[in-house]
Order: sequence, then structure tokens, then C-alpha cells
Amino acid sequence: MANPTLLILAGDGIGPEVMAEVKRIITWYGDKRDMPFDVTEDLVGGCAYDKHGTPLHDDTMAKAQEVDAVLLGAVGGPAYDDLDFSVKPERGLLRLRKEMDLFSNLRPAQCFDALADFSSLKREIVAGLDIMIVRELTSGVYFGEPRGIHTEGNERVGVNTQRYTESEIARVARSAFELARRRNNRVCSMEKANVMESGVLWRQVVTEVHAKDYADVELSHMYADNGAMQLVRNPKQFDVIVTDNLFGDLLSDAAAMLTGSLGMLPSASLGLPMANGRPKALYEPVHGSAPDITGQGKANPIACILSFAMALRYSFDAGSEADRLEAAVEKVLADGARTADLLGPEGGSPISTTQMGDAILAAL
Amino acid sequence: MANPTLLILAGDGIGPEVMAEVKRIITWYGDKRDMPFDVTEDLVGGCAYDKHGTPLHDDTMAKAQEVDAVLLGAVGGPAYDDLDFSVKPERGLLRLRKEMDLFSNLRPAQCFDALADFSSLKREIVAGLDIMIVRELTSGVYFGEPRGIHTEGNERVGVNTQRYTESEIARVARSAFELARRRNNRVCSMEKANVMESGVLWRQVVTEVHAKDYADVELSHMYADNGAMQLVRNPKQFDVIVTDNLFGDLLSDAAAMLTGSLGMLPSASLGLPMANGRPKALYEPVHGSAPDITGQGKANPIACILSFAMALRYSFDAGSEADRLEAAVEKVLADGARTADLLGPEGGSPISTTQMGDAILAAL
Ligand SMILES: CC(C)[C@H](C(=O)O)[C@@H](O)C(=O)O
Ligand SMILES: CC(C)[C@H](C(=O)O)[C@@H](O)C(=O)O
Repeated sequence: MANPTLLILAGDGIGPEVMAEVKRIITWYGDKRDMPFDVTEDLVGGCAYDKHGTPLHDDTMAKAQEVDAVLLGAVGGPAYDDLDFSVKPERGLLRLRKEMDLFSNLRPAQCFDALADFSSLKREIVAGLDIMIVRELTSGVYFGEPRGIHTEGNERVGVNTQRYTESEIARVARSAFELARRRNNRVCSMEKANVMESGVLWRQVVTEVHAKDYADVELSHMYADNGAMQLVRNPKQFDVIVTDNLFGDLLSDAAAMLTGSLGMLPSASLGLPMANGRPKALYEPVHGSAPDITGQGKANPIACILSFAMALRYSFDAGSEADRLEAAVEKVLADGARTADLLGPEGGSPISTTQMGDAILAAL
Repeated sequence: MANPTLLILAGDGIGPEVMAEVKRIITWYGDKRDMPFDVTEDLVGGCAYDKHGTPLHDDTMAKAQEVDAVLLGAVGGPAYDDLDFSVKPERGLLRLRKEMDLFSNLRPAQCFDALADFSSLKREIVAGLDIMIVRELTSGVYFGEPRGIHTEGNERVGVNTQRYTESEIARVARSAFELARRRNNRVCSMEKANVMESGVLWRQVVTEVHAKDYADVELSHMYADNGAMQLVRNPKQFDVIVTDNLFGDLLSDAAAMLTGSLGMLPSASLGLPMANGRPKALYEPVHGSAPDITGQGKANPIACILSFAMALRYSFDAGSEADRLEAAVEKVLADGARTADLLGPEGGSPISTTQMGDAILAAL
């Protein structure tokens, strides 16, 4: 059987630095666990724009459609701030999500015990936190038409369209219910059904899917503004949260920041099954391109490494290998290995990106 | 000269209970400070629906347009959850905002020192927090057309439109810059200009208004997802935040919850100046109708009382009277008066809504 295939798009900023550590781990799986991957690399984001004048070349898009999983580092940076909207680094990432139809974005917000004190929240509020935000990723106001800036009378008008179809809502709801069954069996759906009709439909469809096929899962509904409050007040009340693309963007970032473990958090974006049964998939850390520390060997590679662990679990049906990798990360943290972002106000001496990679490889 | 006029819309849930205390304070200002107000009362939200079949009767709307300021309690509750979208209690509030053209929603997020320990955040992160979120309130996805649920092929589709004109953005930006000048002279504008053209226009217009008339104010821009993170990580980095209707809804609620003082936070919604020079204005607490404690005398009236203090300041040019009322609130808190929501895990004996009103009146 052919080796599983990976496309690595390291991207901008610290993307290439953290991805370098993931590549060593991929090699380790080939050498030591007899799990060889065929790896291709390409450009996305600002670096793709610099070379091709577009943040995602058509050839790269085509490759992404063919591989078993895409691993992405980060996109964007101040050098690209003044670019026209249509060629912004982020548009490369959005094109991948849209054309691969990666509708279900899994964003775990997990507090690592060794790091609970880095949270701005009190330890008892976040210690042991383990929630999963399922964000719809291919529709909503990110993609709806009409959109753009036009002139009306003598002024400019900016327009975007929030648009959700029944089937778009149903499929992401299903993925949330499925996940909940493997976790604590609770789903909270968030929208603004009190002020937006797209939220009314969202609530209706989630309720229907639940009644039809997932009545064993506990379902609740919450307005997204209250959701933002409740995440701050008492995040442990949640198990799985399912929400739309835009709310999911804000809520998952807030949730990630709660944990104190931002440099640690992975994500998976999953689509429909391909011919080989694997879902279309893209894995990326939650953190951004961190231009302020780029090129200094300071970046924490763990979020990117744990994204590869999610790939093992969700794309390659290798849950126990994912467990192994996650356990290695936990071990090095317990042993005290800390990149600069993981040092508290007391300080201590940080290790470099590569040294963190070394430690995790050694623990594997 | 005629007395200034107030329309009181106590609304649903705990709205009438907290408003009862505000009414006593209004009477006090008439009796003791020679500031008599002409007060009218009417219905909004679920109670208006119960009586008239609409959450805001046309006569009430007309009255709201005529008075100097509207004071609102809270709208909504589980009894109205299954109502049709068009008659939801919230639609009454939205109609007021829209028809009075209250484009600038001021949401202070202030941490009261006596309450800092109630925050889920560490004391050092929130103690002394005093930021102001200026939320655009009459446009964006809350109001844009087309909107609704329709059928396409054999499925339902939910649509809302995010739409901002240049002048809508400019006027709320101005109000944020003006406020910043009276505070710490810093404005952070939040949008998603990396994925939404309406956000691109937002950033452009805010930048233009700044360059033209407010270059003395420090202006920064942040993506709203990062804004949600930064509010959790280190809210004291902000002074004034200006953002659109939907982002403002989530971000201001998250910011309110950070403070640990949710039952304490007021808001003002301001529009254009009327013939008498006063802005169209509506004042309401940030908290909701709290159905779980309705009718039990447990509600904290302070947010509603501080909303009246904002009315004194922004509608009646009585800043020193607002200071007086705020000082009275601070004094009773310092003296240890606590409604149930202000008791920590250690407990203690709470006072009732009316007793809190008594204490504030006594301190005035
Ligand atoms: C980079 C950007 C396009 C993206 C988004 O807004 O979705 C990011 O914030 C994320 O959450 O993955
Ligand atoms: C009650 C509701 C319509 C309202 C909103 O979404 O604006 C509320 O959440 C608020 O923030 O004032």
C-alpha cells in the first residue's frame, strides 16, 4: 500500500520554525514506528504572495486536494498589512478551507496542569479545563455573497453576507454530536437567534438533527454573547460547543486564551471522506505567525506538534500513536522543559524551539 | 423651563424590580436636589407583547422619540422563547435603538475594587480595570437587508446582511475619539479586516477620521478575534475600544464579565442631538432579565441605578450629580452592603433589592 501523504505549508513568521520540529517527528514515526509518510512542501500566505503574487498558487491548491492531510504553520505578518484584501495572506488559508470544504473546525481548549498558573484566570476556574469548540468553517459571513465595498450616492458601503443553508448547519451539528459521544456527551449550540434569522435557522436545524439522530446527547442553546460571558465566568460548564464561523472565530480564541496554554493548542479542520475513507483534513496550531519573535528560536513548537497528533488521530486512525505523542509532550512539560512563552513572571531559563523538539523526540 | 422628561420602560423579569429603586432615586433628585423630572412609564418586551401582541407599541415608540431620555430595565425571558422572531421581546429594544438612531453604545467595563475577587480572573489582572467599549448600535448585521429565512431548492436558507456605510462608521468613530479625549486618549478599533470587506472599510474610515480630526488621540487596530483574546489576557491594555454592532455585543459582554461586577454595569445608547441640544438617549443595565431570580427581591439594582447616573452625565449635563450618585454606590459597597450576587463563596447575609436602594438613598 502506498504511504500516506502529507502536504506541509509552513507559511509565514514562526510557521517554518515550528514546522521544522514537526518534520523531525514525522521522520521519527517513519523510522521508529514504521509509519512512513510521503511529505511534500509548498508555500502559503505572505511567502506565496512574495513568490507568485498570490497567497495560494493553483498548483498548491491542487496538491492540497490530493493529499491525505495538510499541515499548516501560520500565515500573515505586518509586511503584508497593506496588501489588497484579495491577496492578503489569510485569503490563502480561506481558499484552502473553502475549496477542500473543511466544514468542521475542531478547536480544543485544554488547560495543561503544568501551565494553569499562566492563565489570567484563577487556577480553580481553569485547572483541568478540557472543552472542544466545533466551529463551522466554510460558510457564514466569511464566504457569503454579495460582498465587497461599493459606492452609493457619495459614500462607500461595505457589505458581507451571513448565509447558512440547512445542510451546512446539519453537517457541522452532526460532527459536534459525534464528538460529544466520544467525550462527555453534551453539546451547547451558540448563535444570536434573538436578533438574526440565520441564528433562528441554526437553532432549528441543530434541534432537528438532535431529535432525529442524537437524542442521547444532552443539547442546550445559548446566545453567543452570553456564551462569551460564560466562557469567562465558568468555562468548565461546557463539553462541546458548536457555533458558526464568525462566532467560532472569537469564541475559540477567547477559550484558547483562557487556558493559559495558547502556544500549546492545536486544531483540526475536517471535511467529507475521500475515496480512501479519510476525511479531507488540514491541521494547524491556534496561534498566529508571531512576527515579534520570528527568527529568534523562541517559538513554542508544541501547538504545531499537537496538531500533527490530531492528524494521527483523525486522518490516520492512529489514536494510540496520537496518545503516545501527547504523552511525550506532557512528560517534557512535567520534566520542566519550557520555551520562553511558558515561563512565568518568576522567570527561569527557556529552551529554544529546537531544544523543545529534541526533548519531545527523546521522550517518544 | 419645563422639567426634563423621562420614559421608563421597566420591561421583563427583574426589570421592574431594579427600576423601582431607580424611581426612588429620581424622586430624591426632585425633592432634594431641585431636579424634578417628568416621568412616564410604559411597556417593552414580553410584557408589551402580552398586552398588545407586539414587543413595542407604536404609541410607546412615539413617546420614546419625544422624551429627553429613556430608561430601560431588561427584556425577554423563557416564557417568550418560542415566540416568532418578529415579536420576540428583543425586537422591541432593537426597534427603539434603530428608530431613535442610537448609534453609539457606551459600555463601561469597570472593576469595583470591593468586588475584584468575584472575577474569575486574577485580582491583579482586573483590579482597577476601567475601559469603555463603544459599540455601533444601529447598523451592521443586526439590521442589514436582505434578511430572513427562505427556501432554495429543497432546503431552508438563513440570511443576514452585514452592511456599513462610511457615515455610519465615521460617526461612531468620532464618538469614540471624543470619549477617549476625556479619558486616557487611546482608541483601539476592532474588526476582521482580514476576512471581511466591511471590516476593511471600517478600518479605512476610522483611520481617515482619526487623521482628519483626532490625530492627538492614539489609535490602534486589532482583529476582533485577537481582541477577544487580549481582553482575557490583559484587559488593562485598553482605554476605549470601538467596534461594530455584532462584535461589540460579544466583546462588551465578555469585558463586562471580566470585571466580576456584572450586576453593577450600566450602559448608555446615544444618538444625534435633539432640538433642545440633548442627544437622543436610552440607558439600560448590561445584565439581562434574570428569570431565575425574578420576583424574589434578590436582584441587584446598582447597574440600573448607575445607568441613571450615566443619564445625568450624558443627557442632563449634570456630571457632578452623576459623580454624587456613583460615590453613594461606592460608599455603600465599601460599607459592606451586598445583594446576593455580590456575596463570594464565603457567603454572608445578603440584603434585598429594596434594602440596597435604601442604603444608596441614605448615602446620597
Ligand atoms: C487567519 C484568519 C483568516 C483566521 C480566521 O479568521 O478564521 C484565524 O483567525 C483563525 O481563527 O484560524
Ligand atoms: C437583548 C439583545 C437584543 C441585546 C443585543 O444583542 O444587542 C443584548 O444582548 C445587548 O447586548 O444589549
